[in-house]
Amino acid sequence: MKSIKKIAIIGVGFMGGSLALALKKSYPYISIWGFARSKRSLYRIKKLNVFNRIEQNLKDLVKDADLIVLALPIYAIIEMLKKISPFLKKDAIVCDLGSTKELVEKSAHKILPKGVKFVGCHPLCGGEKHGAEFSKADLYKGALCLVTSSPKRSASKTVDKIWKKLGMKTIYISPSFHDKVLSPFSHLPHFISFSLTRSTPLKYAGYSGASFKDLTRISNSPPSVWTDIFLSNKKNILKDIAQFMKMMQDFKELIRRNNRQGILRFITQVNKAQESLEKRLAIKPRTK
Amino acid sequence: MKSIKKIAIIGVGFMGGSLALALKKSYPYISIWGFARSKRSLYRIKKLNVFNRIEQNLKDLVKDADLIVLALPIYAIIEMLKKISPFLKKDAIVCDLGSTKELVEKSAHKILPKGVKFVGCHPLCGGEKHGAEFSKADLYKGALCLVTSSPKRSASKTVDKIWKKLGMKTIYISPSFHDKVLSPFSHLPHFISFSLTRSTPLKYAGYSGASFKDLTRISNSPPSVWTDIFLSNKKNILKDIAQFMKMMQDFKELIRRNNRQGILRFITQVNKAQESLEKRLAIKPRTK
Repeated sequence: MKSIKKIAIIGVGFMGGSLALALKKSYPYISIWGFARSKRSLYRIKKLNVFNRIEQNLKDLVKDADLIVLALPIYAIIEMLKKISPFLKKDAIVCDLGSTKELVEKSAHKILPKGVKFVGCHPLCGGEKHGAEFSKADLYKGALCLVTSSPKRSASKTVDKIWKKLGMKTIYISPSFHDKVLSPFSHLPHFISFSLTRSTPLKYAGYSGASFKDLTRISNSPPSVWTDIFLSNKKNILKDIAQFMKMMQDFKELIRRNNRQGILRFITQVNKAQESLEKRLAIKPRTK
Repeated sequence: MKSIKKIAIIGVGFMGGSLALALKKSYPYISIWGFARSKRSLYRIKKLNVFNRIEQNLKDLVKDADLIVLALPIYAIIEMLKKISPFLKKDAIVCDLGSTKELVEKSAHKILPKGVKFVGCHPLCGGEKHGAEFSKADLYKGALCLVTSSPKRSASKTVDKIWKKLGMKTIYISPSFHDKVLSPFSHLPHFISFSLTRSTPLKYAGYSGASFKDLTRISNSPPSVWTDIFLSNKKNILKDIAQFMKMMQDFKELIRRNNRQGILRFITQVNKAQESLEKRLAIKPRTK
């Protein structure tokens, strides 16, 4: 397994900033570098007081890095892969933290030079915060990390060791399966929350119950990240939206027709599904 | 203002049971009676160990009660108003805890005999629990209670005093305005949550992010209560469902057409709305 002396983080927002804090804590001897795309972000990133060096020059940042972490929106990851490719060490490992995996995985294999290893990762701990200023060292602790490379590859083993050291559990799945299951369990809920917040007459929000707050908490999620998620997982999300809207339509018809027994049955089924769901959520994921 | 010596609670579930516990704590000298519709519920209610008496006979329960609280689903409230009407004291106060108010208010004025006062109430603290066994004495503390009678009436003042003693804030609004604003801020979120849980492939729930858990928490809400809410507030909820589905349709089209700028603008608008929403939620409601 590869020894890591220098890690470069590109995209120092909430996820990237938190990762830098966590890495510094677990690996005080590894040199952690951050990328600042402008003077303004350089100033913002400096405040974290965690990086051994903040670079504005990509070549200088990555040329001797053993591990490069891309904590960027999906299409920005692909652009960045093109930009850093010419400067990477022969045996460097590149990983990303993107919320969809199929497009990034395919792009990485096309773009990266021979010898450089790519490990697609998705730590399930993002949340609705944006900005490096919210970074926290324990963001990754206890979270699940979905890895879309083969666990047998040496690069996967190196990255896996780091995630575990940070307190994460890792599960290995294919990029296409990842995108298929994350669509109903993360992308659709965000799509729904955004639509609900946008369609609500906010002036009466003082009468809001806990239910409305539950459903709109994630409406604060960053536009750049979520635009890329919806576009890069378009196939799955459109299918899941259609299925959800069909279900709403059926349920709405029961109400419109005063079908008391139908509504009772519908919600009773939902209660049962919710119960089985809570049991499944309670089951600890199978770890590698 | 009327002096209250005996309170009868009809509907000893999560809301009614918690109310009994809270009343006993705040008013140890008031006699609190509960209604059990069957031997089985009698046994269940006894376990709460809070009632001065549990009655199976409605006449004996209400004939000398100063305040009767109906903690039942909407249509069950209306049936119960009919059943207890012949036995009520001339100056008794009847109040309900229902989640829609227009139908109950109209029915109460038709059904109740002259001299009996009705005060429509909706404490915003139900949640997804059902069953007396989950009752807790502090459920009402800090919650908002929407009251749909005039604050000038003597009966309203009596009930208001009790809610305040239990730690609630009261706001006076009309029954029709209540049903109009609760539709987007409580009924629609439940409709959405039920539909989402029902349309999701639960076998992959192990990959669920925090967002899915947020949106489906309330899917455990009781079928009898929610069937009655949707049916009794049909006019408002159908309108709000239609508006929400139109918003989803527009948003979906942006994704289908790869309209990156459109999606970015949509989510940016949502972020702004969410920010203004959080400010409004933070403002303490105007209390009487």
